[in-house]
Amino acid sequence: MHERTQEESMNLEKARKDLAALQRKMSAYNHAQEIIYFDGATTAPKGTAENRAVSMSVLSEESYKLCTCRETVDLLEYLDSRKDELSEKEQRMVYLLLKDIRSTAKIPRDEYVAYQDLLVTAEDVWHTAKEKNDFAMFEPYLKQVFDTNIKFAGYIAPEMDPYDYWLNEYEEGLDKKTCDEFFEALRSRLVPLIKKIGEVTAKSCSGEGPEAAQTGKLPDKSILFGNFPVEKQRILSERIMDIEGLDKNHIGLAETEHPFTTSIGSHHDVRITTHYYEDNAVSSMYSVIHEGGHALYDAGSAEDLAYTVLDGGISMGIHESQSRFYENIIGRSKAFCKCILPVFKELFPEQFENVSAEDFYKAVNAVEPSLIRTEADEVTYSLHILIRYELEKRVMAGELSVHDLPAEWNRLYKEYLGVDVPDDKRGVLQDTHWSGGAIGYFPSYALGSAYGAQFLRRMGKDAIDVEKNAEIGDFSKINKWLGEQIWPHGELYTPRQLLDRVLGEAFDPNVYLDYLEAKCRDIYGI
Amino acid sequence: MHERTQEESMNLEKARKDLAALQRKMSAYNHAQEIIYFDGATTAPKGTAENRAVSMSVLSEESYKLCTCRETVDLLEYLDSRKDELSEKEQRMVYLLLKDIRSTAKIPRDEYVAYQDLLVTAEDVWHTAKEKNDFAMFEPYLKQVFDTNIKFAGYIAPEMDPYDYWLNEYEEGLDKKTCDEFFEALRSRLVPLIKKIGEVTAKSCSGEGPEAAQTGKLPDKSILFGNFPVEKQRILSERIMDIEGLDKNHIGLAETEHPFTTSIGSHHDVRITTHYYEDNAVSSMYSVIHEGGHALYDAGSAEDLAYTVLDGGISMGIHESQSRFYENIIGRSKAFCKCILPVFKELFPEQFENVSAEDFYKAVNAVEPSLIRTEADEVTYSLHILIRYELEKRVMAGELSVHDLPAEWNRLYKEYLGVDVPDDKRGVLQDTHWSGGAIGYFPSYALGSAYGAQFLRRMGKDAIDVEKNAEIGDFSKINKWLGEQIWPHGELYTPRQLLDRVLGEAFDPNVYLDYLEAKCRDIYGI
Repeated sequence: MHERTQEESMNLEKARKDLAALQRKMSAYNHAQEIIYFDGATTAPKGTAENRAVSMSVLSEESYKLCTCRETVDLLEYLDSRKDELSEKEQRMVYLLLKDIRSTAKIPRDEYVAYQDLLVTAEDVWHTAKEKNDFAMFEPYLKQVFDTNIKFAGYIAPEMDPYDYWLNEYEEGLDKKTCDEFFEALRSRLVPLIKKIGEVTAKSCSGEGPEAAQTGKLPDKSILFGNFPVEKQRILSERIMDIEGLDKNHIGLAETEHPFTTSIGSHHDVRITTHYYEDNAVSSMYSVIHEGGHALYDAGSAEDLAYTVLDGGISMGIHESQSRFYENIIGRSKAFCKCILPVFKELFPEQFENVSAEDFYKAVNAVEPSLIRTEADEVTYSLHILIRYELEKRVMAGELSVHDLPAEWNRLYKEYLGVDVPDDKRGVLQDTHWSGGAIGYFPSYALGSAYGAQFLRRMGKDAIDVEKNAEIGDFSKINKWLGEQIWPHGELYTPRQLLDRVLGEAFDPNVYLDYLEAKCRDIYGI
Repeated sequence: MHERTQEESMNLEKARKDLAALQRKMSAYNHAQEIIYFDGATTAPKGTAENRAVSMSVLSEESYKLCTCRETVDLLEYLDSRKDELSEKEQRMVYLLLKDIRSTAKIPRDEYVAYQDLLVTAEDVWHTAKEKNDFAMFEPYLKQVFDTNIKFAGYIAPEMDPYDYWLNEYEEGLDKKTCDEFFEALRSRLVPLIKKIGEVTAKSCSGEGPEAAQTGKLPDKSILFGNFPVEKQRILSERIMDIEGLDKNHIGLAETEHPFTTSIGSHHDVRITTHYYEDNAVSSMYSVIHEGGHALYDAGSAEDLAYTVLDGGISMGIHESQSRFYENIIGRSKAFCKCILPVFKELFPEQFENVSAEDFYKAVNAVEPSLIRTEADEVTYSLHILIRYELEKRVMAGELSVHDLPAEWNRLYKEYLGVDVPDDKRGVLQDTHWSGGAIGYFPSYALGSAYGAQFLRRMGKDAIDVEKNAEIGDFSKINKWLGEQIWPHGELYTPRQLLDRVLGEAFDPNVYLDYLEAKCRDIYGI
């Protein structure tokens, strides 16, 4: 007996080492693919996309083989069979790795390959369809994407509602029931709020604004537009990175068409990007603050998570809770506007000579129902998401046909935001998500904003004076709190587990709605 | 019989496809490693080197396994056994792939690994030793590097002289005999030439310069020094790339500490780098022209060589023949100086207001014996190489101990270049090559320059008016000639075969020496 036990424990030790080696290999393949993607978005000569595609396809195939080969499956199943002897982290690694393998194994190989091909085509067609404002062209591909998502969910989790399956994929623990309650809370308080702001603004424009008169000026966004040389804006980016507490030894800044954040191989190397608009003083700054939040989360993983599948953020929802916390809750607070305005006065003296912190604060928080999600303000943003949620939920349930999506899209934009959608390219064709197969992904954007507000309240209970720290431009206490409560855990806990640990109370969207209403009261006097 | 033949031909067809697939995979691994390296040199945050090292080590191991696994060896040996049925290109692919595998197989695995470790340490130690000007510290490692090179050559090619083996590794077909003749030709004409220039210069300084008086002013390099903002130099780089005919869709320019050229995955994506010195008007320009030459060669591989081992240049010697052809033979010609001076007058009007094309031409061609190889002018450069060649040849033959290298180095610098070496960091410790194990590599630098001069003569025979094309800044005819004669062949032909095809006559260093002497006659009136 003694001999057997010894042998068993040697086997387990070896398997643990193999598990670490496997993940190190996976990280290296990820490193390669991430840096090839990053290079393509930032530096590569224009004509080299095809060359990258050739290498990417080989590397993703090699990495897929590594993750799904007999040897890997045997290793993981062996470890799974002895999971009680593994650490909490190892258990989670094995669970996440096996989950992917088992899901993929349930999809017939030919259908899986056909779907990958479909996505490539669908994205191409979507690009052209958007350019040509031609939804009919995209419709059959979009229908196939929805159909395949329903079918695959049925293969993998026949016991689940298909949309629930996908919601849970993007935000572990999320389902329609939770979303319904969440979005209903948002809808019921934000739609009237936005309507009221619309009325105040309209009255002011027509010169009958008693509320505006009571509470000072309404927001004037025009103070943010002018001529802001890129060189100066680059200096601003550096200052913002320093204030936000980004470690430039491990977090780099580059320029791309659309801002994003990516880790390169591990949390030791994170890149954020921004886009400079010469006519807009704050667009790039808020991109940097936002992506900086993602970067802080990624880079904040515990040291022993590097080169494992637990490295980096757990979900889009938690990720957005960090980025939007920094961008909106801090970055658009009155306190931070006081902090940053002197930098604008220094860099762009003529433009900001007569601008007060109050003017600046109002301008960067102006609420204006609009057509395009990515340009929406903090208050209307969640309604853009709500509309997408309602639509994809109904299509997945067979209650709405893909053919009828544009009409419903336009109807809901009118109902919730009060805007008329003039064409599909500024309507149902605006986002890339569906063409990429990401159905069930949108809700996490709105959830993240709401999580953030509850983190803010929790910080307050923990005696962190966020407002004061924002005003003096010292984020160290805020970063320390998030860097202890949230960032180090990587993918160890599900979003729900993490929220329970951090909040010590149930998630409640009303905290977020209270926050938004208070801000609007301050700005619009309503 | 008929059946068997059909089966055989099917097997061969499959093996050919597998050969293509194997090389495509190898290219993808190269792509990953090249872009990780490039990112590290250009964009990555400062603290991320270790993170890259982790991924690089995995990727190089995976790629090594791919190249040497049983399946690959079987495939290559099968194809080798039927090589008469393969195309010329396939034969060469199989030859090159097998050559590497067979060489490596002859080295005991533990010695191979120990040597890789030695090189990592040796390079580290070299860095410190150079910094501290402490050769004694580096000596034991350098001795081990030389000893291992001798030993490994003995394992792989016991019938060959060890140094011949390594020369042939870096420049297929090269041996000591050829090098001896080549360098003797250089020594016998360049050493007196440089001495004469030194005399003319000294007389001029002491005011007794009859030659200088006869032939106008001596070169005045000071006109190239001043204040040249990086932004302006970046504009110059763009112009140079256009004039040189670099296709910016496939060739990118970045900034690094030391300029280099690298292909990313295939010849469809080539990157060059430069370094801007604000006080030097031409340093970066000549880097761009030089690296541009490498890039044209790499990018000029025939389309069907992409994603094969034949893609890119055949050897360092031929590579330098291209880069130095553009940099020196064209870029430092009087004709090109006439072409480019107006751009300098436009970008830096004050500095170049009173500078003539003749002044500029002389300044960029000033001959000055100096200590540092990488900063040497066109005429003295080859003597820096000659010294390294003589020294490593004698160490490899056991005629000179590593311990005595510094003294011999200093003696030869005095003898050939007339300069006193004040310390080892500006002497024997200046280059990284030996610490990296690259023994036998240096000669290719000098050979390249000499090849280039003979290409120039050949172009003339083919009725290309290089001088006129340089003067009007239109390189299309020159690029077309090189793009037909040299670039498309990639690694298909050995350097010797390529030279035979292109020159139609024996390689003769006197063509290069004639060229150099003529230039010096023009500039120094000697």
